[in-house]
Amino acid sequence: MREIAIIGIGQTTIDEHWEKSLRELAGEAVIAALFDAGRDRVDGLFVGNMLSGILTNQEHLGVLVSDWAGLKYTEAVKIEAACASGATALRAAIMAVGSGELESAIALGIEKMTETKGVDTTAALAEAADADYEALHGVSFVALNALVMKRYLYEYGWKHTDFAPFSINAHANAFHNPYARLREAITQRDYERARMIAEPINLMDASPIGDGAAALLVVPADSLHSNGRARPIVTIAGSASATDTLAVHDRRQVTWLAAAESSARKAYSQAGVTPKDIDLFELHDAFSIMTALSLEACGFSEHGQAPRLGLDEMIGINGRIPICTRGGLKARGHPVGATGIYQIAEVVQQLRGEAGLCQVPDARIGMAQNIGGSGATIITHILRVK
Amino acid sequence: MREIAIIGIGQTTIDEHWEKSLRELAGEAVIAALFDAGRDRVDGLFVGNMLSGILTNQEHLGVLVSDWAGLKYTEAVKIEAACASGATALRAAIMAVGSGELESAIALGIEKMTETKGVDTTAALAEAADADYEALHGVSFVALNALVMKRYLYEYGWKHTDFAPFSINAHANAFHNPYARLREAITQRDYERARMIAEPINLMDASPIGDGAAALLVVPADSLHSNGRARPIVTIAGSASATDTLAVHDRRQVTWLAAAESSARKAYSQAGVTPKDIDLFELHDAFSIMTALSLEACGFSEHGQAPRLGLDEMIGINGRIPICTRGGLKARGHPVGATGIYQIAEVVQQLRGEAGLCQVPDARIGMAQNIGGSGATIITHILRVK
Repeated sequence: MREIAIIGIGQTTIDEHWEKSLRELAGEAVIAALFDAGRDRVDGLFVGNMLSGILTNQEHLGVLVSDWAGLKYTEAVKIEAACASGATALRAAIMAVGSGELESAIALGIEKMTETKGVDTTAALAEAADADYEALHGVSFVALNALVMKRYLYEYGWKHTDFAPFSINAHANAFHNPYARLREAITQRDYERARMIAEPINLMDASPIGDGAAALLVVPADSLHSNGRARPIVTIAGSASATDTLAVHDRRQVTWLAAAESSARKAYSQAGVTPKDIDLFELHDAFSIMTALSLEACGFSEHGQAPRLGLDEMIGINGRIPICTRGGLKARGHPVGATGIYQIAEVVQQLRGEAGLCQVPDARIGMAQNIGGSGATIITHILRVK
Repeated sequence: MREIAIIGIGQTTIDEHWEKSLRELAGEAVIAALFDAGRDRVDGLFVGNMLSGILTNQEHLGVLVSDWAGLKYTEAVKIEAACASGATALRAAIMAVGSGELESAIALGIEKMTETKGVDTTAALAEAADADYEALHGVSFVALNALVMKRYLYEYGWKHTDFAPFSINAHANAFHNPYARLREAITQRDYERARMIAEPINLMDASPIGDGAAALLVVPADSLHSNGRARPIVTIAGSASATDTLAVHDRRQVTWLAAAESSARKAYSQAGVTPKDIDLFELHDAFSIMTALSLEACGFSEHGQAPRLGLDEMIGINGRIPICTRGGLKARGHPVGATGIYQIAEVVQQLRGEAGLCQVPDARIGMAQNIGGSGATIITHILRVK
């Protein structure tokens, strides 16, 4: 497969965008990515989205967006893998361009969640779980994660407050990200006093939903010449997807993300790197327990020991493994189908040296991991400065 | 891109499957395709589906099916492009294997439409149209097609009954297809007396919905050896997708499927063939007007003259261009996200010589075209015996 470069990124702020429709929000990100790349056409559009059909009565998003964003007649399709829809859209774009079938493509992530035409968003999100064996019994996503976190605390002897550094770090970084939903720092006290949602998960363990869209423009790397370019070329060094059982109760061990381990291993192998080589990691902190499980499954910590990384201040911008450098899901926000694209756009910013006050020094290799359901679909990307 | 072969096909009957859940129906088709190919594993699963989130409260279909069908841990994702979801899933599988990223993949189409948990199916289907500018005003899909058909009759001076041969042909062929929803022949009199739905479209112009799943297993063609094989190897000679405006009223000419013309031209060029070389054409006859428009846009008839092909008996099994050879959408049935895969499976049957009483003599090159919305997403595939 041909090597792929990301030459354009675009993002909208994550917010309650009452004034913008689904297509307007998507168009804003697509046009920003085209502008960033200095292009006006692409051969294909891959739209990552989970909930448009349920929440806004609109499927067929590929054409909705290509039509609106001035990409009429372009091949366009929607890709869905719950909260991992964004990264799967990028993977589809990579395979389309990598195969030679297309010469350029945009991977878009878009979700509009705060205008729901009467549908309950928590119920809609539960469609990412097993409808017959989980959702039907009333188990929401926060409840599933609460059960996993409870088990983790029991197995490894951590206190709930040991997870505070994950949330504090995310909020501290989001403060400097103009696209973030919650641009406000929080303290240990804020974390400890936060309202309980599903014990032991409180409001500061959970990421906020929101409306947002982000886009990436990909082309074959060999079509570019680095001579005289103002910005470094960022390429895809690894891209891998793996799945686990849909229902959490079917897993051998609920505190281990087997699909994260599997997809990360594949991506490391493709990129020829180990966890030690990763300069920053945009992980899928939908709930603080997922931060711990991701760090462990990807080899940044021993099993059951990830809270130690936070307590020892190793996850900040200057730490051993900076995570959630633009706020993560926790504070940048989690517009579900768009999240995977935001993560990659943030890694690109870091590798280009465009991350402002959140810049990781000398970032050359960045990783992003997008999770659908409670660890059922997991996609890992490793990006590198060429 | 590597050449791709289809080595396994699987279908369920199209029916009201009250006794089978979404995953059971999907699993049946996947396992049938694996069995047909003599394999027990694949590297990826691409699920074409439009309505599971809306009608059965289940998104995240990739994992739902991989988990259930014994393909645990396999990369799996859902692809959506309204009624063209099936063919877009196949295209995703082709690009994944063609790029070398995967060595084998299943493209599955699945739709469960008759068990809807209280949601109106016509309203759900309208999510393939423009929610803000079409569906919101109460225009259903049959209404949109009725407006197009009315314009066509006016522009070219045909009578409604001139469309009868399309429906009669489809029903005649479905009679011999064990998977078809409506295995009953109809007469000219049945067509003329059918109940009106949206003038001029009556019940015999419209395809029935249904529950169904179909699957295709694809691998690189160069991994196969034809020596001593009992069946011919069927390869993808052309695969192309194009889009048009989402809303019908935005088109320059509502009686011309520009995306069908564009995707067919690309596919012809890839395969190095012309319409004269096509031995059979599985077209997207969701409504009889679409049969006419597809035949014209793909070069089988002059603009405005397609009904002549039916009236002159050129569309039957032994005609100049056999269409809907296993019943088409009209009589095989139209489980929307699955239809595109059924079409390809039927072309494979024809090219293998496994189409029984509907066998097109000496079929070597077959074409299938899958349409999403009222001509907004159109995908054309050309298959060939290697």
